[in-house]
Amino acid sequence: MDNRVWIQSVPNFSEGRDLQKVEQIVDCFRAKPGIKLLDYSTDRDHNRCVVTVVGQPKPLGAAMVEAIGKAVELIDMTRHEGLHPRIGCVDVVPFTPVRNATMEDADALAKSVAKRAAERFGQPFYYYGESASAPHRRELSAIRKGQFEGLAEKMKDPLWKPDVGPDTIHPTGGATAIGARQAMIFYNVNLDTSNADIARQIAQRVRSIGGGLRYVKALGIAKEERQLVQVSMNLTDYTKSSLYAALELVRMEAARYGVRVVGSELVGFVPLQALLDSAEYYLQLEDFHVEQVLEFNL
Amino acid sequence: MDNRVWIQSVPNFSEGRDLQKVEQIVDCFRAKPGIKLLDYSTDRDHNRCVVTVVGQPKPLGAAMVEAIGKAVELIDMTRHEGLHPRIGCVDVVPFTPVRNATMEDADALAKSVAKRAAERFGQPFYYYGESASAPHRRELSAIRKGQFEGLAEKMKDPLWKPDVGPDTIHPTGGATAIGARQAMIFYNVNLDTSNADIARQIAQRVRSIGGGLRYVKALGIAKEERQLVQVSMNLTDYTKSSLYAALELVRMEAARYGVRVVGSELVGFVPLQALLDSAEYYLQLEDFHVEQVLEFNL
Repeated sequence: MDNRVWIQSVPNFSEGRDLQKVEQIVDCFRAKPGIKLLDYSTDRDHNRCVVTVVGQPKPLGAAMVEAIGKAVELIDMTRHEGLHPRIGCVDVVPFTPVRNATMEDADALAKSVAKRAAERFGQPFYYYGESASAPHRRELSAIRKGQFEGLAEKMKDPLWKPDVGPDTIHPTGGATAIGARQAMIFYNVNLDTSNADIARQIAQRVRSIGGGLRYVKALGIAKEERQLVQVSMNLTDYTKSSLYAALELVRMEAARYGVRVVGSELVGFVPLQALLDSAEYYLQLEDFHVEQVLEFNL
Repeated sequence: MDNRVWIQSVPNFSEGRDLQKVEQIVDCFRAKPGIKLLDYSTDRDHNRCVVTVVGQPKPLGAAMVEAIGKAVELIDMTRHEGLHPRIGCVDVVPFTPVRNATMEDADALAKSVAKRAAERFGQPFYYYGESASAPHRRELSAIRKGQFEGLAEKMKDPLWKPDVGPDTIHPTGGATAIGARQAMIFYNVNLDTSNADIARQIAQRVRSIGGGLRYVKALGIAKEERQLVQVSMNLTDYTKSSLYAALELVRMEAARYGVRVVGSELVGFVPLQALLDSAEYYLQLEDFHVEQVLEFNL
């Protein structure tokens, strides 16, 4: 088994239309020893590019600083429009421990990248997630409130002074949220009805703000091409709010309408442990140890 | 991820009482580059030692030849007694593809080990499992029938001529079954009754010979220390008879008696894919690809 330290990052850049600019940013993660570009995708409506990259802390940090510099150079937030909330040319940079890494490793990397990028490019950074310097700054949505357009004013409030970098926004780059967090899982459950109201009502009961699972965000949406509806979920800490609990809670609420689960989808990458936890739950395994997985002994 | 070829073997040696002899045999798998001794256990009643080892084909093969030589040297089958059926000082040597390896790789390794050990130690070998030279020689139980004591006579039948080595038994070593096969999974399901008859009846319906799942062997046994019973299963090809199917079939048959599944146990090692298959089934995943597991991209 690979004994190196692996950390994942999923930085979001505020450019989803000019694909030449996107490529220049993404190039910072290409063909470098110790890091691996797993995926990137752009959304015209969101005007945003989401990159998935894994690597060892040193090369991953160096590439991230470089990519932030490229985004500051290429993206002008005063001309940016898009559907997705954002505060800067690099909107958010999460770091997640993947293997042989702790949350502290991810936190240290986030702060090191922020300091270097602030110094070199004059971009201010907010620490969020596990790296947050105060409880009111843990949630990305709180940092993003008011977006780029309201940020210069918001920053005057001492509660919203950046953690590192200048105390004012970068004129064209805005600011960036950066920090350590658990891996996120994007998990959708499909239901055999065409009534999107049902999906919305289920989502409302399953998600944290509706009184559901603490680390689940959820939306109900129609999937018209398949004539069914979907509870689209975001699991922000699968170690506490599990895949199987999310599925079974959706199933339970759906039963109220006589609606059944026809399938589910994992979008993008999923940590192995999240799947093992589900196998362990459903198989009702007693005394299972992950070392029993043969491949973990190679 | 480790790109090397990994093959597993679980050789069974007919010595479970003289632990000094056992150590001399097991030593053949210790402290060698390219192989890893995962486990070994002895059973006095069976008078048998079961070793679990993984490695690259070349060093694994060399160590296996050495261990067979040591067993031929140390174990005298004319004086062996034990509860478990056996035909030789090394009773059986299965090879299983684990990673970056095919069944053909395991088959080639089995045959190469047999040829070398036959030549060096005069031990005859039967190819079994995927390596069998005829359908009637695929099943280990068929090769073992008559055991060591009946083998000299059995070997006179052209149907039971060894595949490699002398046409007569080794006077003290007997013969050995060797071949490639799928990884076996030892899976027990616990039921909330103290009536062992119920476990036996369920086992009878779940196992292949009773009309149940093709690649499942099963026994019903009492677990007196826990005041419950267990359907103890051996999954000989989990890619076709899965963990989840075995569990759900036991659950279904148990329902007839009003008996419930209180838990299950995986004994020893389990291939990762068997657990992923169960997660995929129970989560009702659509379009899941194993490449979505983050760790598989490291």
